[in-house]
Amino acid sequence: MRPVASPDVDAATARRRLAEAPVGHLATVTPEGRPHVVACCFVLEGENLYTAVDAKPKSTPALRRLDNIRAHPPVSVLVDHYEEDWAQLWWVRVDGTARIVDSGAERTGALGALATKYRQYREEVPPGPVIAVEITGWRSWP
Amino acid sequence: MRPVASPDVDAATARRRLAEAPVGHLATVTPEGRPHVVACCFVLEGENLYTAVDAKPKSTPALRRLDNIRAHPPVSVLVDHYEEDWAQLWWVRVDGTARIVDSGAERTGALGALATKYRQYREEVPPGPVIAVEITGWRSWP
Repeated sequence: MRPVASPDVDAATARRRLAEAPVGHLATVTPEGRPHVVACCFVLEGENLYTAVDAKPKSTPALRRLDNIRAHPPVSVLVDHYEEDWAQLWWVRVDGTARIVDSGAERTGALGALATKYRQYREEVPPGPVIAVEITGWRSWP
Repeated sequence: MRPVASPDVDAATARRRLAEAPVGHLATVTPEGRPHVVACCFVLEGENLYTAVDAKPKSTPALRRLDNIRAHPPVSVLVDHYEEDWAQLWWVRVDGTARIVDSGAERTGALGALATKYRQYREEVPPGPVIAVEITGWRSWP
């Protein structure tokens, strides 16, 4: 009997890898149609991903991603693992639709979940809006 | 005399951080106008950045980024450093215009530079095209 080939990463592993990653890479499209990518902290809650705008409210980079999402709600978030041994590489990407949550229970809940994951958010609650990404598709490798 | 505030990262530091990073995050825009982001190895040569399509030529992810670039040449590449101490975070992002280089001296030179940076490319030369990104803008933080 021949050995069974390793299966691709299953859905539970992909979910765990995404949930545990400290940093994701959020790709958006500018109003002019150009790609934009930032590193961000985030938390996974069910099929929603939340990230806070923790830069100063007036700062250009923070406004940039918000402007992009207002113009183009589709976003993509990648987490990946690199090491010298390329047999150990992996990535998980989710595509989704983003909304800006300025206030209310959803923002409060998201900030609570972020504070559970990140010590820094327990020490200082981000003052700005939260970006909510409703996940519509998962891709992972291997 | 008051101490001088730390300056932002200078251009030489941003260049070094980009050049030395083993993995970048390449954001493109799909033909339909959605954002797409992949992790990739790359090499910096002057004001050009090169990345090889090292997946199997027929594989969907590799074709995806090539299709995106054919439809929308603008790309963005981010490298970033994360650690528990957020005072140590940094990122460098370059925006640019991408071209697909299927053959010729530019492809050969890029593969040579990639082989210098990555042991794996010395052991097995990527068979596919190379993506050349002409850098048009630098952003870095802090």
